Amino acid sequence: MTLTGHMLIGQHTVAGNRAAIRGINPATGAELEPAYAGGSAGQVEQACALASAALDAYGDTSLDARAEFLQSIAAEIEALGDELIERAMAETGLPRARLQGERARTCQQLRLFARTVQAGEWLDVRIDPAQAQRQPLPRADLRQRQVPLGPVVVFGASNFPLAFSVAGGDTASALAAGCPVIVKAHGAHPGTSELVGRAVARAAKACGMPEGVFSLLYGCGHEVGIALVSDPRIKAVGFTGSRSGGLALIQAAQARAEPIPVYAEMSSINPVLLFPAALHNRAQALAEGFVTSLTMGAGQFCTNPGLVIARQGPALDGFVAAAAERIKTSAAQTMLTPGIFHAYDAAVKALAHNPRARLAAVGQAGTGPNQCQAHLFVTDAADFLADHRLQAEAFGAASLIVQCADDAEILQVCTHLEGQLTATLHLDEADLEQVRALLPTLERKAGRLLVNGWPTGVEVCDAMVHGGPFPATSDSRTTSVGTAAILRFLRPVCYQDFPDSLLPTALQQSNPLHLRRLFDGQRER
Amino acid sequence: MTLTGHMLIGQHTVAGNRAAIRGINPATGAELEPAYAGGSAGQVEQACALASAALDAYGDTSLDARAEFLQSIAAEIEALGDELIERAMAETGLPRARLQGERARTCQQLRLFARTVQAGEWLDVRIDPAQAQRQPLPRADLRQRQVPLGPVVVFGASNFPLAFSVAGGDTASALAAGCPVIVKAHGAHPGTSELVGRAVARAAKACGMPEGVFSLLYGCGHEVGIALVSDPRIKAVGFTGSRSGGLALIQAAQARAEPIPVYAEMSSINPVLLFPAALHNRAQALAEGFVTSLTMGAGQFCTNPGLVIARQGPALDGFVAAAAERIKTSAAQTMLTPGIFHAYDAAVKALAHNPRARLAAVGQAGTGPNQCQAHLFVTDAADFLADHRLQAEAFGAASLIVQCADDAEILQVCTHLEGQLTATLHLDEADLEQVRALLPTLERKAGRLLVNGWPTGVEVCDAMVHGGPFPATSDSRTTSVGTAAILRFLRPVCYQDFPDSLLPTALQQSNPLHLRRLFDGQRER
Repeated sequence: MTLTGHMLIGQHTVAGNRAAIRGINPATGAELEPAYAGGSAGQVEQACALASAALDAYGDTSLDARAEFLQSIAAEIEALGDELIERAMAETGLPRARLQGERARTCQQLRLFARTVQAGEWLDVRIDPAQAQRQPLPRADLRQRQVPLGPVVVFGASNFPLAFSVAGGDTASALAAGCPVIVKAHGAHPGTSELVGRAVARAAKACGMPEGVFSLLYGCGHEVGIALVSDPRIKAVGFTGSRSGGLALIQAAQARAEPIPVYAEMSSINPVLLFPAALHNRAQALAEGFVTSLTMGAGQFCTNPGLVIARQGPALDGFVAAAAERIKTSAAQTMLTPGIFHAYDAAVKALAHNPRARLAAVGQAGTGPNQCQAHLFVTDAADFLADHRLQAEAFGAASLIVQCADDAEILQVCTHLEGQLTATLHLDEADLEQVRALLPTLERKAGRLLVNGWPTGVEVCDAMVHGGPFPATSDSRTTSVGTAAILRFLRPVCYQDFPDSLLPTALQQSNPLHLRRLFDGQRER
Repeated sequence: MTLTGHMLIGQHTVAGNRAAIRGINPATGAELEPAYAGGSAGQVEQACALASAALDAYGDTSLDARAEFLQSIAAEIEALGDELIERAMAETGLPRARLQGERARTCQQLRLFARTVQAGEWLDVRIDPAQAQRQPLPRADLRQRQVPLGPVVVFGASNFPLAFSVAGGDTASALAAGCPVIVKAHGAHPGTSELVGRAVARAAKACGMPEGVFSLLYGCGHEVGIALVSDPRIKAVGFTGSRSGGLALIQAAQARAEPIPVYAEMSSINPVLLFPAALHNRAQALAEGFVTSLTMGAGQFCTNPGLVIARQGPALDGFVAAAAERIKTSAAQTMLTPGIFHAYDAAVKALAHNPRARLAAVGQAGTGPNQCQAHLFVTDAADFLADHRLQAEAFGAASLIVQCADDAEILQVCTHLEGQLTATLHLDEADLEQVRALLPTLERKAGRLLVNGWPTGVEVCDAMVHGGPFPATSDSRTTSVGTAAILRFLRPVCYQDFPDSLLPTALQQSNPLHLRRLFDGQRER
């Protein structure tokens, strides 16, 4: 397929008429063809109008038809073959195997949402039948289901050009909920976005979906994004990116005449707690696992272990020494964009100049542009508690070890933490009581707690929570990965005393969708 | 019981030391004893500290213990006997039977949440067991449950001194979710609030709950409320009241270092659509039902029918004439507070002076203070569409009839509406196709759609939605009435590779709570 550099407004290929972006090969600094001209206010308006016009028809598709659409998107993405992988490699500097894995994950994610749609539990059907004879007042017939919120804007993420971008988790879950989607492509991988966007549009056409179910816009700067979030027809926003970017979108969404939810996944340093017995028994293995997780993908993961908390002493000293050794020999890796590299560089320099932190190790220097050198810092609990800047996310392969004097200080550090996506616990049998005492605090701080593993690697499944208290996300009640992500794009509607013929299929008395409804206070079997 | 005029900070009776409020008998204007001195910043701080300290223990209570606590609150409220009813009558001007009914509803609501807690579906347990042999990567063991958000602040509502106040729906659902609650009493019924607050505190003590599970504060002006919402230990807010009040709380919640959700139920005019066949066949009966619903409780309900939409013509003229006749003979009723009366008076005067609306009827004048006279206005669709002020809620027994030229204008008026709690459809068989065409638009505007009934009267059950798009509420994804209200105060946490002994009971492998879990993609039976 030849890349056109054009946007997709429904089924129409449209050239933007604002300043253009281009992909950049971060490994060489070379600009990639073609240029992607940004959308105008009028083009944003067209996409919103189409999405709004598609809402009734798309929201009313059968569960099977909607599932088939999601499956068809997956098949169309797979049909792009190596062209997709090679373009993504050129635009992101990510290795082939990683992108092949991410493509598999993206397609599996779409198919999982197809199964979720068909199972229909998300409709949360609740029926309280009429009680005409009830005293002192009769009860009406009341039936509740979930309906789509409305058109959703999704912002592509830089660090997952497939799984969190054009047809990633936000798009898949919004489409699953019955919401038309407008994607604002991330400027770091416009060609990858075009390829995937065309795959989605082909699937929409093949499945007979209304045209406005999907659009893909480009834009340089914030103009297109803010215009989309501000459009009164848009009813929710999905975003994965920086704290400042997320907060700007939240502000725009709150400034509307009708404020709307923004699901922004923003910032997390993912504390790792090393408990005494575990640290004593396997400091070397822990250091190895830690550095592998820290440096994977140049540390460009939301769940990168950016903070280690443990009690000071010889065991921790051994861990730090072993981790430092591995860091020093770790190879430099190309970061996703010059912007991410410069932000990382500034963040590690700030830490290196902060008298409250000590640089323990630096990885190997690279030869080309945008090379991430891993960094390991050490501080004490008192310093960590005194300086909020030590909690700032340095997006990349940098981590800070916090040495605590005792259990009380560990609790103090945990209590002091901002909201997180994950908290990791390395423990042995002898640590259980100490862990148990900390659990309530950690549950309040993070969306996912994990034992004896590493936070990088986020399974797409029913039980996953990729979310957490602010600023990890803007809405701790939700997850952006896993099937519960569909719940972000729904709202309940109650139908009172409706004649059966007027009821939506999900609520009709004969239960045509074979749902296990909450019927008169009892869950059907 | 002797009213003390004191606040409750946990189990402690504490005298406020700021400006006092007093109940006022709206039927006479007389001030009631005792005075309720407002809480200081230090007292707000004490209540928040206690609530925060109670979170771990209260959030960890067994489902049975928590249910028993809710049931015990209901029993303690019932044990207050006539003293509660009489104090509420004096403070609100509401009749005895209405308050007896509201007490029954409040206690039934607490018991319904007790059953909901015990059923445990709200825990939404999802388990994806480990797949050690999976290729290319093994799957970890992943388990998700819902945990309480944290301490919740509830603002009492003026118009339901029992069902939406100290132990009303917000408090019951937050306690059910495992969240400690701090209630800011509404200034219109401080004595009623003290009685109920003491009942809650007695139940907490009898059930061995941690002290900070419940506090009750008073305050004149906004100081106490804003201080509560701004306290970093508070994690969610429930509010029923005016649009300006709700927006002020949302602003305070968004200005925090960690923004929190505010569930504000604010403003709704509850459109009623009269379809042609229904209007032709039973204009008189519709007019009778309409005026009964409009004037019930002096119109002081969130679901009061403040807007009627129908096609112009003789049938509608007949309805307007019949409704006007009934309005003219409707007796004046005492409003809840002088403030509500003055706001109503200003709103109907503004409508009367608006050249786009015509006054069709006024109810009988009253003799005492704060008497609500019902008002009926008529306008045309073009005028309604041209003047946004005609959509403003006039809290009280006022309604506006919008005459439309044709179906297209009806659709236009519906599309133009702000978000609503309810939309009511009066229809006969012959109207079905026209109704069907409007339904998608109405679903997007309201949380509850009802056929051939009236919107006042909100059943407390599983299927109820008392919510809707902004400005009806601040969060259309939720309901403040019915068992789904518990979902507002929860967030998911995922536990990865936890040893069974470290897992919360709800997630342990042996399923000790006998939940129907989502296990490996299948719902257990």
